[in-house]
Order: sequence, then structure tokens, then C-alpha cells
Amino acid sequence: MGSSTMVKVRNILIGGEKPCICVPVIGVDREQVLREAEEVCRKKPDLIEWRADFFQAIHDQNSVLATAKELRNVTEDIPILFTVRSEREGGQPIPLDGQEVQQLIEAICKSRVVDLVDYELAYGERIAPVRRAADEGGVRLVVSRHYFDGTPSKETLVAEMRQAEQCGADIAKVAVMPKSPQDVLTLLQATEEARRELSIPLITMAMGGLGAITRLAGWLFGSAVTFAVGKQSSAPGQIPIDEVRTVLSILQMYSQ
Amino acid sequence: MGSSTMVKVRNILIGGEKPCICVPVIGVDREQVLREAEEVCRKKPDLIEWRADFFQAIHDQNSVLATAKELRNVTEDIPILFTVRSEREGGQPIPLDGQEVQQLIEAICKSRVVDLVDYELAYGERIAPVRRAADEGGVRLVVSRHYFDGTPSKETLVAEMRQAEQCGADIAKVAVMPKSPQDVLTLLQATEEARRELSIPLITMAMGGLGAITRLAGWLFGSAVTFAVGKQSSAPGQIPIDEVRTVLSILQMYSQ
Repeated sequence: MGSSTMVKVRNILIGGEKPCICVPVIGVDREQVLREAEEVCRKKPDLIEWRADFFQAIHDQNSVLATAKELRNVTEDIPILFTVRSEREGGQPIPLDGQEVQQLIEAICKSRVVDLVDYELAYGERIAPVRRAADEGGVRLVVSRHYFDGTPSKETLVAEMRQAEQCGADIAKVAVMPKSPQDVLTLLQATEEARRELSIPLITMAMGGLGAITRLAGWLFGSAVTFAVGKQSSAPGQIPIDEVRTVLSILQMYSQ
Repeated sequence: MGSSTMVKVRNILIGGEKPCICVPVIGVDREQVLREAEEVCRKKPDLIEWRADFFQAIHDQNSVLATAKELRNVTEDIPILFTVRSEREGGQPIPLDGQEVQQLIEAICKSRVVDLVDYELAYGERIAPVRRAADEGGVRLVVSRHYFDGTPSKETLVAEMRQAEQCGADIAKVAVMPKSPQDVLTLLQATEEARRELSIPLITMAMGGLGAITRLAGWLFGSAVTFAVGKQSSAPGQIPIDEVRTVLSILQMYSQ
């Protein structure tokens, strides 16, 4: 049975009673990234995700590290999640191969300028060295799996989260693209089961309009973080942070 | 497969794309009922439920009929659902036995002063004559089942809604009391399955704080009506109508 381990990053508790709101930053260059971060920070999200696959100079490690450092200054105490989403899991096309992505993530971890990194379960054996680099840099590891074309079975989803935990994830993330309300319930059920079985916080969502409810109510079933729009959306179905907050506060008031 | 029959009552479509909001009126006497109805009508619910088990003169059929007629004038074109909830399904203790309740419901149907009546699935063979009285009075029949002590299996819940349809219900209603987030998902799954199988609109909810999400999002999975508080709550977990409207409008905007 899950022992409900929480992850504390700076002053933010992930996996506690309240869901965290994470807002993506998807600028294509240093200026855009920093300007966007400034804007979204005014909305006081719990976390900021820098989706570096949108960053045009991603092939230039020094540029990425330097921008991350500046981002750190802008976001002050809001934890930063660094993500290079692969194209096959819904990210932007980038000129890096798997090994280069791994090296970049390891360098980011060791630089200690971000608080969390996302790395995909599909990278398999590459996860272990990234895990070591994360430990070295004091960075938390989110191991993720995104299904942009549909929704696998509840059993598959639970197995993916279990595998993420076995690979050393501090947090497991799964996202699906529902084609029916049934798929949305499958995602929520998988979340609820995995929460009972596993010991790490989970981040789950069903994307698109059909899945919007999971971005608002997934926390009731065990999803610790919801992704909301600060300035620009990074995935289908994300809802503006103000509306997410409105619904969360109503749910929090009446779900007691 | 369900053919998604909708029920039109006055100008309100039950089982259409948008969920209906029903507000209970639970006054103990004529004055309270009418005053409460006036207040809640200002909030423009889609439906009003008169929970006549709260009405102290329920043993006096003429008094019930006269009050229903006055209620009709107060609510103008808002459809009225007339309900005598039994004590064993969460209602108030009343001095009527099963036969007397049946007679009252039949008299209400024939009087044509209400638009819908609620009758419990547990009344079994008494449903058929009530169905005939409803037809005679042009009243729609909601056949309901309430579990105040827990949540039966998904299969049981679907079977109850199926049985309600077989008994001639225009609308089937089930309510459960969840003890875990799992129970909440069971209720939503049963709703989703029954919607695909059956041809009549459904009204489902998980009560209490744990179930609050079903009062806000149950419509995404097939529940046609949500009960919200206008002035006074009639069951655990009901949320004020203004908050329900806020969440529904956000969900409607982003669930497209």
C-alpha cells in the first residue's frame, strides 16, 4: 500500500492535501522565456515548467544553462521543472538525439539551477544515469509517459506508474488523450489505484476538452499537480490558471 | 445502446447537452414552502423539487394539493418535481404508509399541478399504478433509489437504473453515499455505462463531501440533473447554486 510520500521542493509540497498548479513556459528564445516567466510568476503558480523543447537554442548547452540560471532569478522561490518533451510524446521537434538529451538533462541537474527534471519512461536504461545526476544535483526526477493518440487500459497505466517508481522516479506522470468519457474514467481509476499502491506522488491527466475535468478534479483521486495556462498552453485542454483556482477553491470548500 | 431520449418539461430539456440544476424546497408549512420557493425562484433554477416529506400537513391531501397549486403560481414556468422521500431512503419520518403515499402521488399526478413526481424503485408493484396516474395527468415519472449507507457495485447501480426504465420511468435516479474516492468513481462509471445502455435520462450523484465532484461534473458522464442549494439543503453534500453555476460554466467552456 502506498505510504503517501510527499516531495518538498523549496516551499512547495507535492503530494500533500492540496493540488499544486504548474504553469508552462514555452518561449522560443531567452527573451521570450524570461518575459513569459515574469508574466506567469505574477499569477503565483506553485510550479513553473520550462518546456525547453520549444527553445530554439536547445542544441547549445551553455545557452540553455545560462537561460535556466536567469529563469531562476526571475521565478525567485517558485520551483522550476525542466522538461525536454520528446516529439513522439507531444513535444517540439529538436535537433538532439537521445544521448544528447540525456547529457543535457544531466548537465541541468548538476548545475542545480532547476528543482525538478522531467525524463520519459520510454528512455529506459538512460533513466539510471539521469537519476544519479539528479541525486548529485539535489534535483527531483519526474518520470513521465504521454499517450497522445488514445488511452491504454487502467492496468497499463498503473503498470507505467509502477515502473516509473521502480526506475527511481520521485514523481510519476502519465497523460492520455481520451476519446470518450469512459477513457477519462479509466485515467481517474488508474490514478486512484496507483495512489493506493505506490509510494510516490503522481501527476495524471486526460488531455483535450474531454479530459478537462481531470485537470480540475484529478487531485481528488490522487493527482498531485495540475498543469494550467499562465500565458500560453503547452498541451491540449489546459485551462487558464484563474479558472483552475476558482474551481479548486469551490471543490476544496465542499469536498470536506 | 441508449438512444438518448430527452424529456421536455415546460421549457426545460432534461437529458440534453446541458445539465439542469434542481433546487429543493423543504418548508414545513404552506407559508414556508411558498416563501422558500419565491426566494429560490429568484436564482432561476431549471427545476424545483418540493420535498413534501418535510411538509407537516402531508397527511392532509387537500392541504398538499392546495399548497402545490399555490407553489405552481409562485414558480411560474419553472417545472416542479414533487417528492415524498421515504425515511428509509433519507427522507423525513411521515405518518403515511406505503398505500397512502401511493394515493397521494396519484392524486398529485391527476391534479396536474406539478410536472414530475419522484417514486422509489423499492415500491415495486406500486409503480405501475403510479405510472398510469402520471400518464393520466401528463406528469413525468422519476424512479429513484438512494443508498445512504454506502455504494453498491457498478453492476448493481446499472441494474437499478435498468429496472427503473423497465418499470416505466421517464427518468432514473440513483444516489449513493461514498466512503472512498473509489466509490465516487464507481458511481460515475455506473452512470457512464447506464447512459450508453439505457434510453432514458439519468440523475446520479454521490452524496457528502467526497461526492461533491459528482454534483459538479456528473453531467460529463451522463447525469442530466444536479441538485443544488437555493436556500436550504435537502441532502448531504449539496452545493449552493451560484457555485454550481460557476463550475458548470467553466467546465462547459473547456470541455468542448
